[in-house]
Amino acid sequence: MFVNKSPRYEILSEESLAVLDRGWRRIVSELGIEFTMPEAVELFAAAGMKTEGDNVFLDPDFVMEQVAKAPHQFDVHARNPANNVTIGGDNMVFGSVYGPPFVREGDVRRVATMNDFEQFCKLSQSFPLLDSAGGTICEPDDAPLDSRHLDMVRALVTLTDKFFMGSVTSAGNAIDTLAMADIVFGGREAIERNPVMISLINVNSPLRYDERMLGAMFEYVRAGQPVLLTPFLLMGAMSPVSVQATLTQQVAEALAGIALVQLIRPGAPVIFGSFLSNNDMQSGAPAFGTPESAVGLLCTGQIARHYGLPFRSGGGLTASTTCDAQAAYEALMTMLPTFLAGTNWVMHSAGWLESGLASCYEKFIVDIEILRMMHEEFKPFEITEESLAWDAHQEVGHGGHFFGAAHTLDHFRDCFYRPLLSSTMNFERWQRLGGEDATDRAAKIWRETVDTYEAPPLDDAIRQELDEYVTRRRAELGD
Amino acid sequence: MFVNKSPRYEILSEESLAVLDRGWRRIVSELGIEFTMPEAVELFAAAGMKTEGDNVFLDPDFVMEQVAKAPHQFDVHARNPANNVTIGGDNMVFGSVYGPPFVREGDVRRVATMNDFEQFCKLSQSFPLLDSAGGTICEPDDAPLDSRHLDMVRALVTLTDKFFMGSVTSAGNAIDTLAMADIVFGGREAIERNPVMISLINVNSPLRYDERMLGAMFEYVRAGQPVLLTPFLLMGAMSPVSVQATLTQQVAEALAGIALVQLIRPGAPVIFGSFLSNNDMQSGAPAFGTPESAVGLLCTGQIARHYGLPFRSGGGLTASTTCDAQAAYEALMTMLPTFLAGTNWVMHSAGWLESGLASCYEKFIVDIEILRMMHEEFKPFEITEESLAWDAHQEVGHGGHFFGAAHTLDHFRDCFYRPLLSSTMNFERWQRLGGEDATDRAAKIWRETVDTYEAPPLDDAIRQELDEYVTRRRAELGD
Repeated sequence: MFVNKSPRYEILSEESLAVLDRGWRRIVSELGIEFTMPEAVELFAAAGMKTEGDNVFLDPDFVMEQVAKAPHQFDVHARNPANNVTIGGDNMVFGSVYGPPFVREGDVRRVATMNDFEQFCKLSQSFPLLDSAGGTICEPDDAPLDSRHLDMVRALVTLTDKFFMGSVTSAGNAIDTLAMADIVFGGREAIERNPVMISLINVNSPLRYDERMLGAMFEYVRAGQPVLLTPFLLMGAMSPVSVQATLTQQVAEALAGIALVQLIRPGAPVIFGSFLSNNDMQSGAPAFGTPESAVGLLCTGQIARHYGLPFRSGGGLTASTTCDAQAAYEALMTMLPTFLAGTNWVMHSAGWLESGLASCYEKFIVDIEILRMMHEEFKPFEITEESLAWDAHQEVGHGGHFFGAAHTLDHFRDCFYRPLLSSTMNFERWQRLGGEDATDRAAKIWRETVDTYEAPPLDDAIRQELDEYVTRRRAELGD
Repeated sequence: MFVNKSPRYEILSEESLAVLDRGWRRIVSELGIEFTMPEAVELFAAAGMKTEGDNVFLDPDFVMEQVAKAPHQFDVHARNPANNVTIGGDNMVFGSVYGPPFVREGDVRRVATMNDFEQFCKLSQSFPLLDSAGGTICEPDDAPLDSRHLDMVRALVTLTDKFFMGSVTSAGNAIDTLAMADIVFGGREAIERNPVMISLINVNSPLRYDERMLGAMFEYVRAGQPVLLTPFLLMGAMSPVSVQATLTQQVAEALAGIALVQLIRPGAPVIFGSFLSNNDMQSGAPAFGTPESAVGLLCTGQIARHYGLPFRSGGGLTASTTCDAQAAYEALMTMLPTFLAGTNWVMHSAGWLESGLASCYEKFIVDIEILRMMHEEFKPFEITEESLAWDAHQEVGHGGHFFGAAHTLDHFRDCFYRPLLSSTMNFERWQRLGGEDATDRAAKIWRETVDTYEAPPLDDAIRQELDEYVTRRRAELGD
């Protein structure tokens, strides 16, 4: 977990925030938010909201009363207590890519398998600056569809000892995820006391929460597990072609969901989510790492703080199909603002490629390098008398060099960032050694990391109980 | 010229600034700054400074008195008045890469030629967001050494109608550059009234200005042309292995030079320069796009504003030998902080590769794309009632899409950034069309740009006079 003590970069004026505030209030009260699950609509009706079918017309002040019940920050526990995290405040927590059906490995792009899933778990476990492997690091096509979530959760809790993300495709999958967490962490009471997972509830934007996601959400919230409510906003498709309008819609959708969470379980831990980019209006395809998404990200941080909520955004996003220069600059176009905004929970921190359609091994390493640099760049920076190295200046004087200065010899090992991937090799040596570009080198690094992966210890009884649960449930699910 | 109205990102506390202030004062007064040119030392001695050989022990208060004479901002005129710029304030002005002896074109890396120099001039002219081709865009090896500066200046002033950088390798070269500017801009009095170039005076760090650079500097300052005083600081080599110490040395060196400029010509336009990165202490080779250089850049902006001076820093710097993912993320690692710091004059904005040893055509296009994105990202951003697109929300409602909304149809052409290089093509189409990565596509873009280049108009008499000057001087120089 990274603690970001650097200043936040905020670009919205008070006046802009006031316009946005009026905007989301108008959306929730005049257009309303749809919840295609009767139980959700009933909860709102019981709280005095006007409803019409699935649509709930929300009183904005009521929404704010509910939102005020959500904690400003909360802990999520990991199997290894050293990997526990706090979501909120100055803390930044990072997870791997989430969701891709495909994998890219070098020049090959193919459907993802369970072996890929496990390899990405191993990579996520191996880099300390990732706090979580996430959830669906890729969608393993060779695992049976109806019971695949069991395989993924088992891999996440056995191959890593970091916190993980729950399955959200249905209420049933959420129940399985919770049951497996009970096995690993010592029962329901234990995980209610110390939550162990975060689950991603996407809004079916615009202005609709659907039954599948809501079903999973109800289970997680009732079990005291944090949920992340994320409007899914590609401007031009799910929201207007205006960053301002989209930010307003984002607040309307996220706060409406957070209000529901608080109705289900007052004080439940919850995260204000953001997944905001734009469509390329020439091709209609999604674009990532765009200037608009960066501006949206900076504003989202400021807005989430304005409403007193921990927030999610950012990541190493790109529309590129391959791990090239575009993939790199687009990833950093999102990741640097992620740090400027002080994002609390960062999904897709490593491995995202092809607009989220592919998990890429080489890109995973590029993203890890970017993350490592960001961690260094956003460390507190102060000028003190000691830091001035006056002795070095006295020693070297005019026109000399500092390579041999006593101050240099004392500090050269840890004075600067040491790259994992980047090379400073001169051209002649680089060429002699094969002329490998960053992506070629990344391929070597991920393979070596998987090869030298060490499994975190796990009690045999727990492992056995997990296996039995998976076997039993797979049979019940007919796979 | 870009006007950056976004907030500056400042990380130094008042206390840190105070420590730094004490630090540079101690360096200039106790260690002194060497000026290996008698005329410079005499000027300082005449002003009451203690001198010892080449070394000048500077009274810090005297330095500040001189610095106070420098203008906060000033104009530089271009051959085409539409390309005039203002250096200082919120203005950001961009020039191409400067200095490389090599060129990289695709997979080929070779010694630069005059043809390359001209092609980079054409590229610099073709992209409106570059305010200048710079100066030595590459060092053309096939032009005669002693008169090469004549060829370069002629190319800069004929192939582009933007302002340019003067030759600084000697006083004689500066005199030639000024004479050629006189021809183009109507005489010495005209260019003194409206300066037309900026010239880069590097400090021979640590703490030394050498005779060649000073010789050129005296010529330019006397002719009223702005100079840029840049401590050349690769931490570990030319400065201590401490960002804090290096920032302090940077202030000492730059302010000492600025004081000299003001002694030569009070009120002369001058820029506080920064070229600050670190050595890779494992290899001893320079590293670029590092977290330390980004922090140094942010601080440099704050420090320059503290002393009321326009400043130079940033660029698309990288140590990578090829236009790969590393080149892209390192370039943006510097260019994004360049905008956060509000850098006034940005050298190396396009084409830098291989730690400045190579000018790369493909990287030039990658950098242009990054610059275009930054220009968009740092535009003023406000939320107004009109920007909320309430009509679009009313039209689309719940669960629909905005592709066909009236608001979208009204704005889709210019609502989002339109990339030059980045692709959002889906995998199947991308593969079908040849599977080109960003660098492959950049190769096509730069060639097409050179092919469709249009020379800016130039009076035939001026062109002839320039040619005659070059011919005459080349003969005099014995080339």
